[in-house]
Amino acid sequence: MVPLNIWQPMKFTPLDARTQKTASQVVYQIFPERFAIGGGKTSAEKLQDLAYDLPGVVKHQWDEMKFSPPWSNHFCGGDLDGITDHLDYLVDLGITNVYLTPIFSAPSNHKYDSADFFKIDAMFGGEDALQRLISALHARDMTLTLDAVLNHVSNTHPWFLAAKAGDPDKKDWFTLRDDGSYECWQGHDTLPELNLSNLAVRDVMYRRSDSMVQHWLAQGVDHWRFDVAQDVGIAVASEMANIVGARFPQAGLLGELNGFSGSWFDGAQEGKPGYQGMMNYWYRTATLAWLAGEIDAVQLNGAVRDAREGYGLKGLLCSWNLLSSHDTPRLGTVVNDPVRAKLAWLMQCTLPGIPLIYYGEENGMLGGADPECRRPMAWNESQWNQEQRAWLKQLIAVRQASAALKYGDIIVLGDRLPGNALVFLRATGVPGEEALVIVNGSDAALQVRLMLPYSHWYDGIPLKDALGIAADTQVQAGSVMLNIAPLSGAVYLPTNPYSNYNFFKPRNSGEVGVATIPAPRT
Amino acid sequence: MVPLNIWQPMKFTPLDARTQKTASQVVYQIFPERFAIGGGKTSAEKLQDLAYDLPGVVKHQWDEMKFSPPWSNHFCGGDLDGITDHLDYLVDLGITNVYLTPIFSAPSNHKYDSADFFKIDAMFGGEDALQRLISALHARDMTLTLDAVLNHVSNTHPWFLAAKAGDPDKKDWFTLRDDGSYECWQGHDTLPELNLSNLAVRDVMYRRSDSMVQHWLAQGVDHWRFDVAQDVGIAVASEMANIVGARFPQAGLLGELNGFSGSWFDGAQEGKPGYQGMMNYWYRTATLAWLAGEIDAVQLNGAVRDAREGYGLKGLLCSWNLLSSHDTPRLGTVVNDPVRAKLAWLMQCTLPGIPLIYYGEENGMLGGADPECRRPMAWNESQWNQEQRAWLKQLIAVRQASAALKYGDIIVLGDRLPGNALVFLRATGVPGEEALVIVNGSDAALQVRLMLPYSHWYDGIPLKDALGIAADTQVQAGSVMLNIAPLSGAVYLPTNPYSNYNFFKPRNSGEVGVATIPAPRT
Repeated sequence: MVPLNIWQPMKFTPLDARTQKTASQVVYQIFPERFAIGGGKTSAEKLQDLAYDLPGVVKHQWDEMKFSPPWSNHFCGGDLDGITDHLDYLVDLGITNVYLTPIFSAPSNHKYDSADFFKIDAMFGGEDALQRLISALHARDMTLTLDAVLNHVSNTHPWFLAAKAGDPDKKDWFTLRDDGSYECWQGHDTLPELNLSNLAVRDVMYRRSDSMVQHWLAQGVDHWRFDVAQDVGIAVASEMANIVGARFPQAGLLGELNGFSGSWFDGAQEGKPGYQGMMNYWYRTATLAWLAGEIDAVQLNGAVRDAREGYGLKGLLCSWNLLSSHDTPRLGTVVNDPVRAKLAWLMQCTLPGIPLIYYGEENGMLGGADPECRRPMAWNESQWNQEQRAWLKQLIAVRQASAALKYGDIIVLGDRLPGNALVFLRATGVPGEEALVIVNGSDAALQVRLMLPYSHWYDGIPLKDALGIAADTQVQAGSVMLNIAPLSGAVYLPTNPYSNYNFFKPRNSGEVGVATIPAPRT
Repeated sequence: MVPLNIWQPMKFTPLDARTQKTASQVVYQIFPERFAIGGGKTSAEKLQDLAYDLPGVVKHQWDEMKFSPPWSNHFCGGDLDGITDHLDYLVDLGITNVYLTPIFSAPSNHKYDSADFFKIDAMFGGEDALQRLISALHARDMTLTLDAVLNHVSNTHPWFLAAKAGDPDKKDWFTLRDDGSYECWQGHDTLPELNLSNLAVRDVMYRRSDSMVQHWLAQGVDHWRFDVAQDVGIAVASEMANIVGARFPQAGLLGELNGFSGSWFDGAQEGKPGYQGMMNYWYRTATLAWLAGEIDAVQLNGAVRDAREGYGLKGLLCSWNLLSSHDTPRLGTVVNDPVRAKLAWLMQCTLPGIPLIYYGEENGMLGGADPECRRPMAWNESQWNQEQRAWLKQLIAVRQASAALKYGDIIVLGDRLPGNALVFLRATGVPGEEALVIVNGSDAALQVRLMLPYSHWYDGIPLKDALGIAADTQVQAGSVMLNIAPLSGAVYLPTNPYSNYNFFKPRNSGEVGVATIPAPRT
């Protein structure tokens, strides 16, 4: 087990400013074809654009989409200007970073089948629209994350066509066999795998200053999300982080892996860089399995602790906590219980890591697996679930107001308790910056005394639930009495009831101005 | 707590070749007087040998032995050539190392009461028979482990007789008192303790190049097992490992201790050598107590984790996992339930460490404590339990085909689950070299989702039970659904279902060919 410095907060290695900033994000994931159309155009108007004159394209009105295979040929007209037009909507939610699934030139609606990594698709408005979006985001102190697939391309990509045709410059960019077969992603022959052992491939993807990764960062893109980290490989991620980090030290490089991801982080390999964060599907699996009754609180609390130990504090804080994405059914459809869905969001916004809201979830959009989960955004407020929207806004606001929830360390306590609850303390190491989170997954109330192995919650400190649900309580000599309603929760924050006394003396922290007491004069 | 590198397999310190080789053994323990007689002789023929003309000797036909105290005077005629004659029988089982209880000149059948550490007992065939055995073993790429008692000798040993007689050269080799009493092992006056503080004693036992330990290694013996490590002491073991290891770096030195052995290993003391492995009675105690219902899965899984943390990975891998020996009742007699006995063997062959099979267990021999457990080997196949034999052969084959089971690290997960199961993952750090082991000790099926905090089992990887019992399953985003029958188990190995896609890309491991990507050119 890795020592948790939370036992002795004064031993905290202070987080660097970049990690604090990254961990303080709230990410909104957009599937650009389905979020909004710029300039107030209807789908009918937008889809007249020449960009959609492709074989097999099926055109739809917004909100009237009926699916038929191949789903990737159906279009509603969403684009980058549509996103730019709605940034204030995202600011109102509390969003700080927008993550877009791929936007490079590609025939499909999802554009994971890129035909040119160096052009923004004309359907989405081209390079000019990207620049407008970047400017509008940066004007609001927001950032942009793009999505790249390093492992494979479409079988229509010019590189692959050239390789198949025997072009000596390109044939080693893939792994072709004499019988005409080739390495392809999980056996799909439409997705030939790039040969990342070939230096020329890595040069054009991320090594050269004019490579895909560096080109778009130089254009003002802030961060990257990389597809299928397990296939790209640790060694490639490490080289990329090394090269790209030297030129763009503020750029976040985040990997996708749909299980436990301990090996992929910056520093997970001795002295070697890696991804700053990962998509934390691990937490999603644990959260949904717990709410479905497939695992109990022992496994759930253990899974949370595993991530702290395996990812490290920085890696965990910089990872994305997601409950749904373009690759999964939507939360409400999976959980199918508004009360339990609320608990899932409470976990998402209080566990270490960056909450990622998949577009429309804030308004209660439903949908099963692809293509259902990629339906166009519902902009008609009469279709919104206002209770859900208010809950998520409140959770984001509570998180963003708390240093502990944004970038505190975690100590997991729920597997010590009877019942079926997730319980953990978050703390930054600065006295007063803490949060005690309880999520009661049981049909019975959680009424128990909780021992609190934390040095800076002193006897008598009043605790108030930032959610306004659970009753006030207070620290009692290293413990607290809990009384949490069935299928409910609390985010207890410490308060200082005195005007002329400070429970949280700065000199108990090494991190703030007056903390250091001068040595006695000799 | 010791960090478990399995969270981040890339942090694995690669195991040295010697440890991998040691950990890949399967040991067969033989009590030479009772295993087989060389040259096809009957007991009646063999026992005519002059070597048996000793006072008090009781002679028996093979398989017709009736006990009466003192049991150590009863003989059936087993010898080293009998072992040599049956090596192909052991190869068929999957055995790679033969461990013999003492074979030096001594009056008893067990020969723990040595009268000359430098002679092979004539009953067993003398030095020539040892050389024949060594040659036959090495021709089959098998190794030999002998057994030595450093702590005490027989009270008939010439050294002790000389000391008692006042020989000035020998009197300080023991701890004699003026009243005629002396230090002796656990109060047995037949077993006077050597004075290991005396340099001359340590010289003849292991320090000199012609000492007992070094003499026999020079004769072709491969490894040593040392009796009563708690009495020999850590300091002596450390000096011995230092001296002997310098001349015989490939020789394994293994200690006997019948409880938790964390302090005795190589490196357990900072910068000091120790035993490479220990007899893991700790696992035996936990296994039998669990199968008897004396402890539940929380203690069992905890005990397995304790050994990993206390012994260290290398020490644990090089220790002998035994379920019975010449000092214990046989497994079938203790457990008295063939179904639970099968679970015990499953644990023995999948937990970290070297399985040790006590002669005859493979055929279901029964027997209580000494002398019952030292009955002659039953060579009549009609007496064999063929189901038990097939099960053990299968388990050994499964283990030997899996790098993870032979020398992978372990992460213990069973104490997070409801029910009563031992569950653990083994992994070497090379993607694809893993095994998930489940042993369900409950009368109810184990049906649960298991969270898998391991970075290299990706979503969709099919898992197949190498035992052919449990249903196929697959990795689901960091988890797996288990459905294990009551009192049954599974050894799930990952498989790659594609011909043109590799789930286990070498570039995710720092250990294999193409993993290392050159540093960027400057």
